Amino acid sequence: MQKNEGKNISQAVIARLPRYYRFLGDLKDAGVERISSKDLSIMMKVTASQIRQDFNNFGEFGQQGYGYNVDFLYEEIGKILGLTTEHRLIIIGAGNLGHALTNYSNYENRGFHFMGLFDRNEQVIGDKIGDLKVMPMEKMEEFIRENDIDIAVIAIPKAGAVEVADRLVRCGVKAIWNFAHVDLNVPSDVIVENVHLSDSLMKLSYNLTNR
Amino acid sequence: MQKNEGKNISQAVIARLPRYYRFLGDLKDAGVERISSKDLSIMMKVTASQIRQDFNNFGEFGQQGYGYNVDFLYEEIGKILGLTTEHRLIIIGAGNLGHALTNYSNYENRGFHFMGLFDRNEQVIGDKIGDLKVMPMEKMEEFIRENDIDIAVIAIPKAGAVEVADRLVRCGVKAIWNFAHVDLNVPSDVIVENVHLSDSLMKLSYNLTNR
Repeated sequence: MQKNEGKNISQAVIARLPRYYRFLGDLKDAGVERISSKDLSIMMKVTASQIRQDFNNFGEFGQQGYGYNVDFLYEEIGKILGLTTEHRLIIIGAGNLGHALTNYSNYENRGFHFMGLFDRNEQVIGDKIGDLKVMPMEKMEEFIRENDIDIAVIAIPKAGAVEVADRLVRCGVKAIWNFAHVDLNVPSDVIVENVHLSDSLMKLSYNLTNR
Repeated sequence: MQKNEGKNISQAVIARLPRYYRFLGDLKDAGVERISSKDLSIMMKVTASQIRQDFNNFGEFGQQGYGYNVDFLYEEIGKILGLTTEHRLIIIGAGNLGHALTNYSNYENRGFHFMGLFDRNEQVIGDKIGDLKVMPMEKMEEFIRENDIDIAVIAIPKAGAVEVADRLVRCGVKAIWNFAHVDLNVPSDVIVENVHLSDSLMKLSYNLTNR
């Protein structure tokens, strides 16, 4: 079904896939079995041709005149997004944001397993947050190697983030989900996905001021 | 200096402004007074022509051959982003995410004032988080009107978010910073800026799986 191997899918299409996945998940939960690209387009407020075009990047999902099979499409997009692969994550930073991410329960059944939580503040070492115990930063490298961690979440302030990213890359972490308000400098084969909350709030501010 | 009135700036350009603002802020803090578009482009890993093109949307910021005045450019982009306007915010949801956002200190000096925090859980009503006391949801409308709130932050799960958004819109909130994992249905003059953390993690997963 996937014909994306060796093909470059634009980041714009990729950025839209999780939203399709979310809407299809809602339809599935609601017991809907089939949906036309027209109905999906109304629901998602994008054009039907955009939907067809996006899905065409990955193969043939629909059958002319019959619409899409919701279950099938949901599963296929999940596969494309890599959600059928198990991922093992650690979080750096046991502050409020680290807490929030640890407790975010939706991830587990999509293959994201939070394995460890690290902080440099001695006061919180040993604290339990959900199922995880906060460990000292000195243990990080060893833990990553022993537990085959592939994703690290940086949830610490800007000041320490660049150095931590270097350490993560050196011991083989392949992807970083970065919440620190700084651009990380990592080799090109390491995936970085930034969540810059201030940037998002400023974009809101712009649109509010100039609406 | 601003010539953007009545002109449509693309959301792609707007989305890049906060990043320029961040880098210029760092340069300013480091005591740098002038920078060429070439040096800025190396630092930011975008082309110099992209930078010139982006800034041209808003007027003439640089002087041929002299580069950009960092202080001036920082201030101007701040104005464009609406950061010289005072904004008054409330947060709905006093969970970990609400905590994290309340304590995020960088906002205050950019004109974002967090005025109130609301939760439906009786156990946490009256708790103090930073300077804010958690208030019950029933007080929300009154508080918004009395305190001239223009932005609301939705930091509650998906289930209650749509209903809360309706209430916010009805009492005059003009912008919503939405962390709930659902698309809100609000009138077109209400600004919604979504932070869908799961979408971001799935995008990372895609890029890790298909790298």
